[in-house]
Amino acid sequence: MAVSPSTHPRRLLPLFLGLFQGALLLFFALFVTYDEPSAQAEDTNLVANEVYNTFPFFQDIQVMLVVGLGLLLAFLPRYGFSALTHNFLLLNFSMQWALVLQGLLHHFHHGQVRLDLHKVLISEFAAVTVLISVGAILGRASPCQLLAMATCEIPVYLASEWLIVTCLGVLDVGGTITIHVFSCYFGLGVSKALFRAAKQPLHPKETPTARSDLMSLVGMLILWVFWPSFVAVPCHPGDAQHRAILNTLLAMSASAVTTVVASSLLERDGKLSLGHLQNGSLAGGVAIGAVADMAMPPVAALALGSLSAVVCVLGFSFLTPLLGRKLTLHDQCGIHNLHGLPGILGAAASAVAVLVASKDTSGSQSSLSPTGGNASEVIHGLQRGTAAARRRPKRRTLWGFDNLR
Amino acid sequence: MAVSPSTHPRRLLPLFLGLFQGALLLFFALFVTYDEPSAQAEDTNLVANEVYNTFPFFQDIQVMLVVGLGLLLAFLPRYGFSALTHNFLLLNFSMQWALVLQGLLHHFHHGQVRLDLHKVLISEFAAVTVLISVGAILGRASPCQLLAMATCEIPVYLASEWLIVTCLGVLDVGGTITIHVFSCYFGLGVSKALFRAAKQPLHPKETPTARSDLMSLVGMLILWVFWPSFVAVPCHPGDAQHRAILNTLLAMSASAVTTVVASSLLERDGKLSLGHLQNGSLAGGVAIGAVADMAMPPVAALALGSLSAVVCVLGFSFLTPLLGRKLTLHDQCGIHNLHGLPGILGAAASAVAVLVASKDTSGSQSSLSPTGGNASEVIHGLQRGTAAARRRPKRRTLWGFDNLR
Amino acid sequence: MAVSPSTHPRRLLPLFLGLFQGALLLFFALFVTYDEPSAQAEDTNLVANEVYNTFPFFQDIQVMLVVGLGLLLAFLPRYGFSALTHNFLLLNFSMQWALVLQGLLHHFHHGQVRLDLHKVLISEFAAVTVLISVGAILGRASPCQLLAMATCEIPVYLASEWLIVTCLGVLDVGGTITIHVFSCYFGLGVSKALFRAAKQPLHPKETPTARSDLMSLVGMLILWVFWPSFVAVPCHPGDAQHRAILNTLLAMSASAVTTVVASSLLERDGKLSLGHLQNGSLAGGVAIGAVADMAMPPVAALALGSLSAVVCVLGFSFLTPLLGRKLTLHDQCGIHNLHGLPGILGAAASAVAVLVASKDTSGSQSSLSPTGGNASEVIHGLQRGTAAARRRPKRRTLWGFDNLR
Repeated sequence: MAVSPSTHPRRLLPLFLGLFQGALLLFFALFVTYDEPSAQAEDTNLVANEVYNTFPFFQDIQVMLVVGLGLLLAFLPRYGFSALTHNFLLLNFSMQWALVLQGLLHHFHHGQVRLDLHKVLISEFAAVTVLISVGAILGRASPCQLLAMATCEIPVYLASEWLIVTCLGVLDVGGTITIHVFSCYFGLGVSKALFRAAKQPLHPKETPTARSDLMSLVGMLILWVFWPSFVAVPCHPGDAQHRAILNTLLAMSASAVTTVVASSLLERDGKLSLGHLQNGSLAGGVAIGAVADMAMPPVAALALGSLSAVVCVLGFSFLTPLLGRKLTLHDQCGIHNLHGLPGILGAAASAVAVLVASKDTSGSQSSLSPTGGNASEVIHGLQRGTAAARRRPKRRTLWGFDNLR
Repeated sequence: MAVSPSTHPRRLLPLFLGLFQGALLLFFALFVTYDEPSAQAEDTNLVANEVYNTFPFFQDIQVMLVVGLGLLLAFLPRYGFSALTHNFLLLNFSMQWALVLQGLLHHFHHGQVRLDLHKVLISEFAAVTVLISVGAILGRASPCQLLAMATCEIPVYLASEWLIVTCLGVLDVGGTITIHVFSCYFGLGVSKALFRAAKQPLHPKETPTARSDLMSLVGMLILWVFWPSFVAVPCHPGDAQHRAILNTLLAMSASAVTTVVASSLLERDGKLSLGHLQNGSLAGGVAIGAVADMAMPPVAALALGSLSAVVCVLGFSFLTPLLGRKLTLHDQCGIHNLHGLPGILGAAASAVAVLVASKDTSGSQSSLSPTGGNASEVIHGLQRGTAAARRRPKRRTLWGFDNLR
Repeated sequence: MAVSPSTHPRRLLPLFLGLFQGALLLFFALFVTYDEPSAQAEDTNLVANEVYNTFPFFQDIQVMLVVGLGLLLAFLPRYGFSALTHNFLLLNFSMQWALVLQGLLHHFHHGQVRLDLHKVLISEFAAVTVLISVGAILGRASPCQLLAMATCEIPVYLASEWLIVTCLGVLDVGGTITIHVFSCYFGLGVSKALFRAAKQPLHPKETPTARSDLMSLVGMLILWVFWPSFVAVPCHPGDAQHRAILNTLLAMSASAVTTVVASSLLERDGKLSLGHLQNGSLAGGVAIGAVADMAMPPVAALALGSLSAVVCVLGFSFLTPLLGRKLTLHDQCGIHNLHGLPGILGAAASAVAVLVASKDTSGSQSSLSPTGGNASEVIHGLQRGTAAARRRPKRRTLWGFDNLR
């Protein structure tokens, strides 16, 4: 936490990172191990199936975060290289830091921490919050400031996720609330804290050029393609995962077309704005996360995707200038429009879906339950229990025994 | 259909797209639903396996179409950004339009349309025809003209596919005839209709630069890598799919090397032409589609790949200038050389394969049958029945019950 | 072998490649066939599962080699286009050449060569050695010289791999020794042989620019993301493959962070060097290959990743200038620092792991055995037998019958 851009920032960065790596090695040496080798042939097959089921999703998410998000952030000319490297460094640091904290917090009382692909995936999700928050201060913060932010954000995220999912029992399979909304407001808070007084004029290297725009567009397309994997990986295998994939595909396709409509109507010359396209096309993916695995009709996914694209484009046109003027709030990449507003929309949709399901009396409550369990399970699930059900089956989903046979 | 570049083209595009999105929402609200949740645990496992078997292929194809094809088309400098966005918009619009039409045509008499990943995939294939046809008029048509073309092409494609596969019983697993040859001549027709009289001089922004060439080359490489997924996804799981992957790999590898040979010999300075490499390397993938899952010897795949690369390079060197001079036919990306000629070659190869198999009397007729069925099934299959067999097992292939156990 | 940059190099390249393609066709026509279609339904399911288990890994590796490595090599401005095309051409040529040689050498005495995805994968690994060696002479050798090198290197690689793995029984699942160390010193030898006397000044097109650096960085990130697939694909399914994925993830994550530390401390201005980042982040993946599937504690993977990044950065800072001065050895991409030094480190780690396991007397010798076999098997395995065990189960791993049930 002591990292601040003080006297010798050039040496602070390697010093801090070096000490962190040393502490990581120590922690792993003392506490972390792998699962025992499965003794029986049948177990081996189970592990094999789990690897084949989860690993392609995991690789998709890695491509999204390392290549897609890195290129998306590279829209500032003369900052493209730094955007890619900072994104890469922050992902690795945050993932390791989340691995350490999760090991300490959740598993310490069981003695040894048993590492598996599922735990790495959970840490990767934690790291995503940092990568989103960075969007608010991109190009203005030093690497040391970014690392300090990551160091603080990961424990706050873990606490807030525990509060929202485990205590309040909110259904949020795609991380709409726990990841997107949280990291948006965390990032805006950091931006406000760091650049409080400064009502800076537009920096010359903040004007995108044609070339940096092209790379950024490619990054958006990569994110758009692999987003269904991000939403679907924590779902129950089978129907729920199938539905999550389809809902995400529908929402993102509707987002893409609606963004073109909204942007063309709003821009004075009728031309499509690149910034709108880059963010609006992804807004559907943010909003659908909270409800992706619920048994809602397909039209709801389409409507949610369209609506979130409209909200995102309106946010860029009206809200961002307003926030900048009134609150001197600087939001470099417009994360409030991409993650904040669509996230709130998704949370509202999730509440509506739960209300609709609980009003419906003829046994259709189970329509919300991804496992198709009986009604008492589901009612329990909608309150307290779901949180536990969401957490624990998540583990079972990824590495459990109900996966194949 | 009323979309034409008339009085207010700037407002026509969002108006048309907005109305379309509204109609889509209405159609989905009235007619489309998901499958019932599978009640039993065994069913859940089946769905899970089907998701894991098909979804990685689906993601590969999405990468091909969104990133690979987008970058490939971005070879015109100052048009790279538009090429990527138009490609992205057209893919989404055409996919949604195909989803609506397929819902109306094929499933209306069953009442509710049950959406699944397989139906999305089929719509994606329909959208591919639009993306290919665009190549003929790239950089010369307005977004409204492109959307109008997509609106017309999807129903014509669905009709022609029904005619070719269901009525005529043509074996065409990789879409060589139904997708590549069809969309090539459709695109050339549109080009002729739109730019009939105009024997335009080369537009300055049509001369590729080193940078736009590099992006385009990366796009070709992405298409080259993921092409086997495109060909193999509709095949029967097991031997046929394995064979389709291997045949496509062999054909594309032979194409790549043969293109270098042919281009170096044809170009006056002995240098490899980038245009030749970009198209010739993919020609093998176009041609192999019609025969990929047939039990032909591996050498046939190699030979077909080499031959189609030669045909493609010869087409660029001799046929394209000839067509431009004689017929004033403008083919911006050379889709006739990449999709037309190799597609016809593949169709001819398919006919030869069927003839060889039917002449061979010693029970080897079954070598054509991907499922290894008995002879009577196969003979039936080569005529009328195969079409039905191709359609229906396709569904079974992707989501069916013979997939795992 | 007669290819040398002599009188008519412009015609030599297509002539040589054309003859090679003809010979390939002849070889395939005479000797290569596919497996018989599996007669029974159960067999079909087995083949299907094997395709679904291996094919995603295979596609990941194709992306690494064609897109990732191509872009990584494109860091020389005005050579980016050639780097991508030469890489693509060499991959295809070497893969075909390895397929021919493997067919001739290993399978000739069984009559027909039965082609499957596993054999293509093995040939792909052989082609990797050529792509690595090219790094030493990038931008200085003509295409003909590169092809001549590939023609020689593939048989030498196959012989050396047979010697190391089959005769000496070295455990090397990720190809640390057989691929990385071998191709590094082969490439350096070729560089020395080709540019013996010439102590050339820095060529102007060898100074990277901001744009070429960005593309190269994207290539590195693609390689970084998909590296676990490269290491894990030849492992036994189940625990060993799971462990290989996790070990590779940990090693590469530690490499990335440690590279930033080491590079920032070494560079005079405290800035991160792009060359260091590009190579150091991948060094962990090179080193971990030899031990990835062994049952060592997770901390060993982290430590090996960190150590290899430090060694790689030190190599760039001190060893490369020294080699250039003393031995007039030109190493364009620094393959000695990325593949040579970390490879030797990985080999040493492998020896240590074997020693630790063989000293440990309480039955934990089996901890080295990926299959969890009994002690006598393992002892045998560590000497002669493992080689055979590594070769044969590799086949079983990819296409075998112990895969699913």
